[in-house]
Amino acid sequence: MRLKDLGERRIISRIRQSFSGKRPGVILGIGDDAAVVRGPRTLLMTQDLLVEDVDFRRALHPPRLLGRKSLNVNLSDLAAMGGRPLHAVLGLALPGNIGVTWLDEFLSGFREAARAARVALVGGDISAAARIMIAVTVTGETSLFVTRYGAGPGDRIFVSGTLGDSAAGRRLLERGAKPGKSRPAGHLLQAFLDPSPRLELGFLLAQRKLASAMIDISDGLTVDLWHICEESGVGAEVELERIPLSKELRRASRRPLALALNGGEDFELLFTVPPDNVSRLRHLGSRFKVMDIGRITAGKKIMAVDSTGKAKPLKIGGYEHFK
Amino acid sequence: MRLKDLGERRIISRIRQSFSGKRPGVILGIGDDAAVVRGPRTLLMTQDLLVEDVDFRRALHPPRLLGRKSLNVNLSDLAAMGGRPLHAVLGLALPGNIGVTWLDEFLSGFREAARAARVALVGGDISAAARIMIAVTVTGETSLFVTRYGAGPGDRIFVSGTLGDSAAGRRLLERGAKPGKSRPAGHLLQAFLDPSPRLELGFLLAQRKLASAMIDISDGLTVDLWHICEESGVGAEVELERIPLSKELRRASRRPLALALNGGEDFELLFTVPPDNVSRLRHLGSRFKVMDIGRITAGKKIMAVDSTGKAKPLKIGGYEHFK
Repeated sequence: MRLKDLGERRIISRIRQSFSGKRPGVILGIGDDAAVVRGPRTLLMTQDLLVEDVDFRRALHPPRLLGRKSLNVNLSDLAAMGGRPLHAVLGLALPGNIGVTWLDEFLSGFREAARAARVALVGGDISAAARIMIAVTVTGETSLFVTRYGAGPGDRIFVSGTLGDSAAGRRLLERGAKPGKSRPAGHLLQAFLDPSPRLELGFLLAQRKLASAMIDISDGLTVDLWHICEESGVGAEVELERIPLSKELRRASRRPLALALNGGEDFELLFTVPPDNVSRLRHLGSRFKVMDIGRITAGKKIMAVDSTGKAKPLKIGGYEHFK
Repeated sequence: MRLKDLGERRIISRIRQSFSGKRPGVILGIGDDAAVVRGPRTLLMTQDLLVEDVDFRRALHPPRLLGRKSLNVNLSDLAAMGGRPLHAVLGLALPGNIGVTWLDEFLSGFREAARAARVALVGGDISAAARIMIAVTVTGETSLFVTRYGAGPGDRIFVSGTLGDSAAGRRLLERGAKPGKSRPAGHLLQAFLDPSPRLELGFLLAQRKLASAMIDISDGLTVDLWHICEESGVGAEVELERIPLSKELRRASRRPLALALNGGEDFELLFTVPPDNVSRLRHLGSRFKVMDIGRITAGKKIMAVDSTGKAKPLKIGGYEHFK
């Protein structure tokens, strides 16, 4: 059965049933003109769009993973503020000829990700469209948040996880790799298809006042570092050798560093730490993989230092939607 | 200049500049991973999607009015809850070949509507797309809100304004009518191109506890009345003769009642009022044009009563996105 056979009202009741059940803080969920929730004192709001043939390909992205990703990319933004997620609204513009099973799998993935992060879906909107468009808005809360503009000269620059995996996975997928098959590719495909938001790390960095600035890497390391420098009015020096690359990326790509610098969609955290806080950061323990990749400088230049110690301006690349 | 010449980063700074300035309650606006705002105790959230060639046509909808409408349809949802608007996030998926002036005019319309309702734009997302997709999420607040499920037998059914004008305007527009030209058409075109949210009426109905249930008419009177009946577990009797039709609609359409019943996008309020409150409703004064069109009944049937007093089941029509 296709969505156009189901019709708008039954699509909405399907979503409503799929997310039924009382959730703390939700006074009125899906099904009225607006949701009503208990508002936190300090409310975070973020939104992400995923557009078919721009951000994903329908034939290549399993709908369950797309459902997970469409929530998780928003949670990654909350992680980068140090926030705890609360509520989500889901907007779906869908072609009428899409199968109902596609929708069901998408919703099941969205629900998985929502449960894992204790997010309540409280509303949204449905429309038809020639191509799929997903618009998710998420709210969160925090008493302490970390902006992009707090980096100061001398701060160390850290990233979580490994970079470039997602961009490599995207390329493999477009060249015909299948998710759930080959091993080294598997890690890369997953990084693109099913990224994990670093909510716990971001939350701890904010609560313990360890980070002076933070952003999630969605456009790519160079662009997102540029954002921090631009907003903080500082420069940076990145030691290229210290940028964390997975062994899977090294195996799959001939230019792993280029992907790590500019591939984008890593959804790892990039954050700066004042020197006095670095030892306390180490105390967070081994469950958080973070790597010191350079330092914030007083100038406004962003430099790359290679293995010989030579410094050159870092080229700011990154993903561009408008081409 | 086209959006693809401008590029993503400059598009975002253009939006940021266009909505600069301190707003009360906004701790951190556009330009970080998430917005940070002071949260109200009772938070309302609503979202609406506008999709090119489904909800509007680019060539027919002046971008300034589209900007106004994309916020105002959300404010209409808040009005139907009795809420006061607070913040908005704006998601835009845009074709790269759209002119920058289109974007500027769209933003100027959005800004006008935001100022009029004291809404702060605090964030959003940008992506490319083959066709325009607008996703707006709005928050609001209220200590008292009105749901769809509170209607009880004996309550009177009211609507604000006149119905069917927007649907007639849409049809005229598609047949080549130009906004700002002919007089009777002007009113109808405006109802479709530039609807006004009934924020003040909705707010007063909620604050004075006059309405038992409320919804904004976006799908059409019959569908939206059906929503109230369905959620409240009641039926209704509508006096067809009492449905408010504008003289412009009567002049322009051969079947004005059909458009008023099922045309949709009226963005007027449909609400039920317990009999004891009706006289207090009259005290709201003449600035709110509201019309009593029938009553809630104990059964589950929705009936239409014609001028001779004969009752027939009301056909639930309305706009369907998936065709």
